[in-house]
Amino acid sequence: MPISGFPEWLPAQRIIEQRVIDRIRSTFELYGFAPLETRSVEPLPTLLSKGETSKEVYLLHRLQGAPDEASGDDQLGLHFDLTVPFARYVVENAGKLVFPFRRYQIQKVWRGERPQEGRYREFLQADIDVVNRDNLPFHYDTEMPLVIGDALSGLPIPAARIQVNNRKVCEGFYRGLGLTDTEQVLRTVDKLDKIGPARVAEQIVETAGASEAQAAACLDLAAISAEDASFVDAVRKLGVEDPLLDEGLEELVRVVETAREHAPGLVAAELKIARGLDYYTGTVYETQLRGYERFGSVCSGGRYDNLASSGKDRFPGVGISIGVSRMLGVLFGQQALSVSRSVPTCVLVALPHEEQRVACDRIAASLRRRGIPTEVAPTAAKFGKQIQYADRRGIPYVWFPGADGEPDSVKDIRSGDQVSADAASWQPPAEDLHPVVSGA
Amino acid sequence: MPISGFPEWLPAQRIIEQRVIDRIRSTFELYGFAPLETRSVEPLPTLLSKGETSKEVYLLHRLQGAPDEASGDDQLGLHFDLTVPFARYVVENAGKLVFPFRRYQIQKVWRGERPQEGRYREFLQADIDVVNRDNLPFHYDTEMPLVIGDALSGLPIPAARIQVNNRKVCEGFYRGLGLTDTEQVLRTVDKLDKIGPARVAEQIVETAGASEAQAAACLDLAAISAEDASFVDAVRKLGVEDPLLDEGLEELVRVVETAREHAPGLVAAELKIARGLDYYTGTVYETQLRGYERFGSVCSGGRYDNLASSGKDRFPGVGISIGVSRMLGVLFGQQALSVSRSVPTCVLVALPHEEQRVACDRIAASLRRRGIPTEVAPTAAKFGKQIQYADRRGIPYVWFPGADGEPDSVKDIRSGDQVSADAASWQPPAEDLHPVVSGA
Repeated sequence: MPISGFPEWLPAQRIIEQRVIDRIRSTFELYGFAPLETRSVEPLPTLLSKGETSKEVYLLHRLQGAPDEASGDDQLGLHFDLTVPFARYVVENAGKLVFPFRRYQIQKVWRGERPQEGRYREFLQADIDVVNRDNLPFHYDTEMPLVIGDALSGLPIPAARIQVNNRKVCEGFYRGLGLTDTEQVLRTVDKLDKIGPARVAEQIVETAGASEAQAAACLDLAAISAEDASFVDAVRKLGVEDPLLDEGLEELVRVVETAREHAPGLVAAELKIARGLDYYTGTVYETQLRGYERFGSVCSGGRYDNLASSGKDRFPGVGISIGVSRMLGVLFGQQALSVSRSVPTCVLVALPHEEQRVACDRIAASLRRRGIPTEVAPTAAKFGKQIQYADRRGIPYVWFPGADGEPDSVKDIRSGDQVSADAASWQPPAEDLHPVVSGA
Repeated sequence: MPISGFPEWLPAQRIIEQRVIDRIRSTFELYGFAPLETRSVEPLPTLLSKGETSKEVYLLHRLQGAPDEASGDDQLGLHFDLTVPFARYVVENAGKLVFPFRRYQIQKVWRGERPQEGRYREFLQADIDVVNRDNLPFHYDTEMPLVIGDALSGLPIPAARIQVNNRKVCEGFYRGLGLTDTEQVLRTVDKLDKIGPARVAEQIVETAGASEAQAAACLDLAAISAEDASFVDAVRKLGVEDPLLDEGLEELVRVVETAREHAPGLVAAELKIARGLDYYTGTVYETQLRGYERFGSVCSGGRYDNLASSGKDRFPGVGISIGVSRMLGVLFGQQALSVSRSVPTCVLVALPHEEQRVACDRIAASLRRRGIPTEVAPTAAKFGKQIQYADRRGIPYVWFPGADGEPDSVKDIRSGDQVSADAASWQPPAEDLHPVVSGA
């Protein structure tokens, strides 16, 4: 039976997912990010030290373990994101890595949420991060959205819009307003889309000790949005001054302007973006697909200056993460993606008689040697049934071995066209070689 | 800190692993196996019903779960192989699949073994299986070793030798000898390499009620090995008769002879092979790398006629699984694999001044558009330091933007050769485009 929160795709969906992952991976590699994986588990203290989300952890215990084994500091939990394990990996292997270190990581993560919430408890993330020892140049913050824009624009999905903000802008602004519990304000503003401005204002007053005027100013800041540097003037008009605010604005301008230079329309400054995770210290990203804004962010991340450190060593980083399962779940749910076939197979070699299997296997081997995915028919059924085998899977070509010295022939079962062919040289059109994924 | 049994690779090793997985995947797809993934968890009863290994399970419980949540039939455990989840998936989705169903599955599995045993508790497996409704033609048993031979022969690793046996041979033989607890005999023979023939004979006498002569005959059978059908005569000489034995011998001959036809030297009949898992009913496979026999099997599987069933529906299958982590762990441990660089990057664009970053990013974009993995230097350090950045990562080319209208140039930092180049057309030699994995 299906288990709530643990999605499983059907074969055609899984082919789409694999294609999407391949495209994301090849883009990441084009930008020089090295592949990396970390183990699925971390010691519980590592997981618990990183804020809110970290409480939604699955703990492991061995079925045959001793009773006292399943407790204490050596308890293991499944990771809930890929950033915390990566930070741990960097600190642990710092002596063997070369910095700045660029890596991508495409792995499952798990969140032990209550099943009834209908959210994923197991899902695939595709992350890129750059970390450096001591200091990380800011231009990496401007690079992240460009990589993501490139990765997603190659897919048959709606255009992505990356919303960027900078925590220094918010914290500086709140501080400049005279508020001290800036983290509480940020957490409250993060609920804007869920509970609306009136309740956010109320809660800022209640939980962060703000006046109504201060709360209103926080909402004014959150309302600012622009695809160019014009947001700076809009913030300045609110009349708040603070050096951290200035620093944040300058950084945010650089992200927005670099994106305008290289990928117009991809990135917008959106000053309500806060991000739930505690470890971000500057730039933050969220991403929506146009027309699918109501489904929330499919790709988020940010700058973390203090996540990875050990003694006097500090490894600031910036990263972004595509929520692959989440994005595909939404698109599958809206029937927004399809694929030309549910198998990799391009050619089915028909089997005239079971005794000819060796000859048919040789034809298949010859086609495969030239990169053409090929199967031999499961049984020497009537040719009509063998063609049906291909048709039900979307396999475009059926190969007929020639009888009595006649040449072989190959039939495009979509058009019905059949031509003589030699397994040592025949080539399908490039677009038929692999399954093709299309948008709605 | 490292956690015993949860291996993590360094970046260069991870590049090798990724290359190995890509090669395995593309071979599986060439044979028409469709990609599939199943969730990482199964209900505990599903895991526990499948024999010995299944007792080594990691159970999950939510850190914030209610106390009574972590028990009973709805308890979830991490899967310990990919065959049991696949069988469950087939039964669950039978109405939406087309049979025979060929799929590959490359995923992590977990075994909750005691940490001190020094064995992997998390590792990657790459499986192929074919299942059909009601009956599965035997020729699929002959196909499995050929696919694996093809996948592994494309890798820079020692040649694989696939050892094949058939449970019907063993069971039929033991039965023909007059022994009734054939499973117990099989489990004991499985320990041959660990405890040696004398103790196996003792244990067959002790635990399966055999006479010394019967035990000796079981050992005689286990000693038979051949790369062609000659093993049949060797078995016949032992003078045991049984219809199941005949059936098994006929099947085993087909596997060995088909492999001799298509891939001489790849497959041998090895009548001591038993396999620990209970669900195999016919053909069984194990695989050793030549020169690495002492490290055990890197790829195993077999025929399972009764694993997947639901009511009157029955889905017999045959499959084989490459133990990717196990194989790489052995080869890494023997320094038997290396890679030409630890990053995907082929070209580093040098940065003359920070103000030229936009221009350098454009050069990089131009190279990437033609599939050349490219990074821009992290800072406008002295060129010597930028070349060092490339050198430390094994990046073969450094690109120098031309100053004052001069053309750009590109330097092969291995040879020192530097030539004028245009980012819109320059192409590296094909062998430099991606990292190259080599054997020892």
